[in-house]
Amino acid sequence: MKRKVKITDTTLRDGHQSLWATRMRTEHMLPILEKLDRVGYHSLEVWGGATFDVCLRYLKEDPWERLRAIKKIVKNTPLQMLLRGQSLVGYQHYPDDVVERFVFKAVDNGIDIIRIFDALNDIRNMEVPMKAAKASGAHVQAAVVYTISPVHTLEHYLETAKRLVEMGADSICIKDMAGLCTPYHAYELVAVLKKEVGVPLQFHSHYIGGLAVGAYLKAIEAGVDVVDTASVPLAFGASQPPVETVVRALADTPYDTELNIHELFEIARYFEDLRKRLGYERGVTRISDMRVFEHQVPGGMITNLISQLEEQKALHRLEEVLEEIPRVRAELGYPPLVTPTSQIVGTQAVLNVLTGQRYKLIPGEVRSYVQGLYGRPPAPIDPDIQALILGDLKPVECRPADLLEPKMEKIKEEIKNLARSEEDLLSYALFPQIARKFFEEREQGKLTPVVNNNEGTNKLDKELRKEEQN
Amino acid sequence: MKRKVKITDTTLRDGHQSLWATRMRTEHMLPILEKLDRVGYHSLEVWGGATFDVCLRYLKEDPWERLRAIKKIVKNTPLQMLLRGQSLVGYQHYPDDVVERFVFKAVDNGIDIIRIFDALNDIRNMEVPMKAAKASGAHVQAAVVYTISPVHTLEHYLETAKRLVEMGADSICIKDMAGLCTPYHAYELVAVLKKEVGVPLQFHSHYIGGLAVGAYLKAIEAGVDVVDTASVPLAFGASQPPVETVVRALADTPYDTELNIHELFEIARYFEDLRKRLGYERGVTRISDMRVFEHQVPGGMITNLISQLEEQKALHRLEEVLEEIPRVRAELGYPPLVTPTSQIVGTQAVLNVLTGQRYKLIPGEVRSYVQGLYGRPPAPIDPDIQALILGDLKPVECRPADLLEPKMEKIKEEIKNLARSEEDLLSYALFPQIARKFFEEREQGKLTPVVNNNEGTNKLDKELRKEEQN
Ligand SMILES: [Co+2]
Ligand SMILES: [Co+2]
Repeated sequence: MKRKVKITDTTLRDGHQSLWATRMRTEHMLPILEKLDRVGYHSLEVWGGATFDVCLRYLKEDPWERLRAIKKIVKNTPLQMLLRGQSLVGYQHYPDDVVERFVFKAVDNGIDIIRIFDALNDIRNMEVPMKAAKASGAHVQAAVVYTISPVHTLEHYLETAKRLVEMGADSICIKDMAGLCTPYHAYELVAVLKKEVGVPLQFHSHYIGGLAVGAYLKAIEAGVDVVDTASVPLAFGASQPPVETVVRALADTPYDTELNIHELFEIARYFEDLRKRLGYERGVTRISDMRVFEHQVPGGMITNLISQLEEQKALHRLEEVLEEIPRVRAELGYPPLVTPTSQIVGTQAVLNVLTGQRYKLIPGEVRSYVQGLYGRPPAPIDPDIQALILGDLKPVECRPADLLEPKMEKIKEEIKNLARSEEDLLSYALFPQIARKFFEEREQGKLTPVVNNNEGTNKLDKELRKEEQN
Repeated sequence: MKRKVKITDTTLRDGHQSLWATRMRTEHMLPILEKLDRVGYHSLEVWGGATFDVCLRYLKEDPWERLRAIKKIVKNTPLQMLLRGQSLVGYQHYPDDVVERFVFKAVDNGIDIIRIFDALNDIRNMEVPMKAAKASGAHVQAAVVYTISPVHTLEHYLETAKRLVEMGADSICIKDMAGLCTPYHAYELVAVLKKEVGVPLQFHSHYIGGLAVGAYLKAIEAGVDVVDTASVPLAFGASQPPVETVVRALADTPYDTELNIHELFEIARYFEDLRKRLGYERGVTRISDMRVFEHQVPGGMITNLISQLEEQKALHRLEEVLEEIPRVRAELGYPPLVTPTSQIVGTQAVLNVLTGQRYKLIPGEVRSYVQGLYGRPPAPIDPDIQALILGDLKPVECRPADLLEPKMEKIKEEIKNLARSEEDLLSYALFPQIARKFFEEREQGKLTPVVNNNEGTNKLDKELRKEEQN
């Protein structure tokens, strides 16, 4: 029985976000778009995630203009974006009016498919963006974040997926951001979802330690409809598996993608030249990435831990921190270790080890997390730890964004004529300092890209969050 | 139903042969052997292939001494070697008496499992070494070389495997040296062999374009008993898939390897430090490697073609050569594109393109091949081409080594007291010039390793063959 597998190309979003610190410029994308459009991809992921922020902050490009420029050339293939639930493309929850207008404008400027997720799988954080995406006429893909813990059972994923479909999801994505899902677990998971969830399924994984190609194959056997890949020069390592391998592996099977490998090589050659020109490394698997198999701490998080410990001249305590992380994670209700929860768990673990007394120091973001300001953790937080951390603070039971005042009207007052469009207003609503600086430089005709120091995405992400949240 | 999968570690042979130009020294191996021995590997591949030649020629080490030194430490895990059929660990067929003594001495010095193959799957070239291995008490693993062509059908592999078992093979290896075998073809192939061949099956692949992990999983589902992997710092790219990924992928499944991932990471850390100290790159997948999916020309062969064309200032004709190769290969009876047949086909294709007239120039090795001096090609050679190339020369129908005179007695005369042992005699029988130089330098106490210029194995292989065959 023939069952053609479809492919989403992530080269222009997750690929360079994972390997090139999100530094691909619009001018690097435009020359290859016509070829990408001809391949027959299910969709091209080209927007959202960290690209919005990096455009404004470092590349000094208007992300909305990028989207329109891409849409102008890509006439046949749906454009896809990644949306971090109520955090949109930023690092904190935004008020509902900002979320609604942002989603509407993303679709208005060319997005066809919006992949929406919440780091805690707290579906309350996905309600407003999903409803807005639906109302805007986009295909709403709701993503379930994959992780490993005693509470992340098949039932957890199935329940979450079912409720997301009830909430209007047109398709479900399994989002394995840390490359943790083994082939045979992928099979089980997809088989259960396929049986019980009546919408198409997509699988998104990262190569990391090398499980992803196998996981895709087993997910496909179990019925997954679409998988995410990148062109080989932007594949492997922290990025997606290469499209060429997946296409070849499925050729002449019932799952044949029917993509033309020769066309894919022409595209790869373009990105390979670009890679060399810009001086980026290929994606590789290092031991620190592999060790995710042992303690589920993603390689990027280890990189962050190492730099935190180096600052404290305490690098020799890394192994202790790696052992403390699972304890903290359990006490905090088993959040998946992804932005922002990876930083929350990691920072607390570092402090627990360095101070010599667990939970003696509590950073502000850990307190906010325990209070419920990021949403509901997958499992209850350890009551003793919760009491210790919150003291007199009351835990928040409602959807976090219910505590936020509408903001669109207020920011119009703030930014005045510096904003030339509603798109500008939204950029400002998400990243006020960065956007204001961008608008001012634009007025003065002095927008100049910040030189990239090639430090990699994880460090970058951390810095982004620090700057914007303070 | 539980069916534990076994793993052969290739780090100390194929791993560094594929990625480090075979340049790992015995002193680099000894410190980690105890840990490798404790893992519970099915076997450690530590000898044969190019290691013998490189020991003598560049490292100025006695390969026999290496084997004994390894055997002294590895007390529990069987030691394995790769033998190129009648070519042993060299690049030409040797007389039967040399083959018999070499095999006997390999076992005598510590080898437990001998993997024997012939590049053309001409089993006549495997008869004598298999018989000798059997008589020496070794486990005889006969390998079937995997390639893609109209004559390399499931029946071809099954017939070859069956006859090898009749000839005494204790197990059968599918040897996919170019990383060509897709997961679903691996499944089919293993399923057929498993059903019809009554001995254990092993799968050997190279990572190259990324199919190997998936191919291993599907081969395992179809019943393969053992797969070949390397420690992550010597895995990926031209080498084997990483053991850590395979172990993790199979954990908590009926195929669980039961290897301890923590121990594997300790070993990986050792090799990672060594990699950095020696300055070698990680294994990566480049577009030129991937293109094997399109035209079945292995990446290493493309590297050779590029350097051949560069010498002739004709690099711009690479695409023509890549199109000529399948034609030449078909006319020459579809040999697998591995050493030495990859060079035979490649050189002829280059000449056909550059001279502007097909088969105008015929190199000596192509003539020898067409004459039958490498054995019987998988399919008949095109009769017109054969007539054109051979002219008055008579094709050879017998087993090529039947034309060779015994040599052991003669070389004793030649090398005299410079040889201190039968092992020395065998080194001399295989590589007369190199061995003589080695013995002389040893006498004078001036054995000094040749500095490695990190040029990579393929170029090296080519040079080795050129030097020794002239
Ligand atoms: Co991703
Ligand atoms: Co090999």
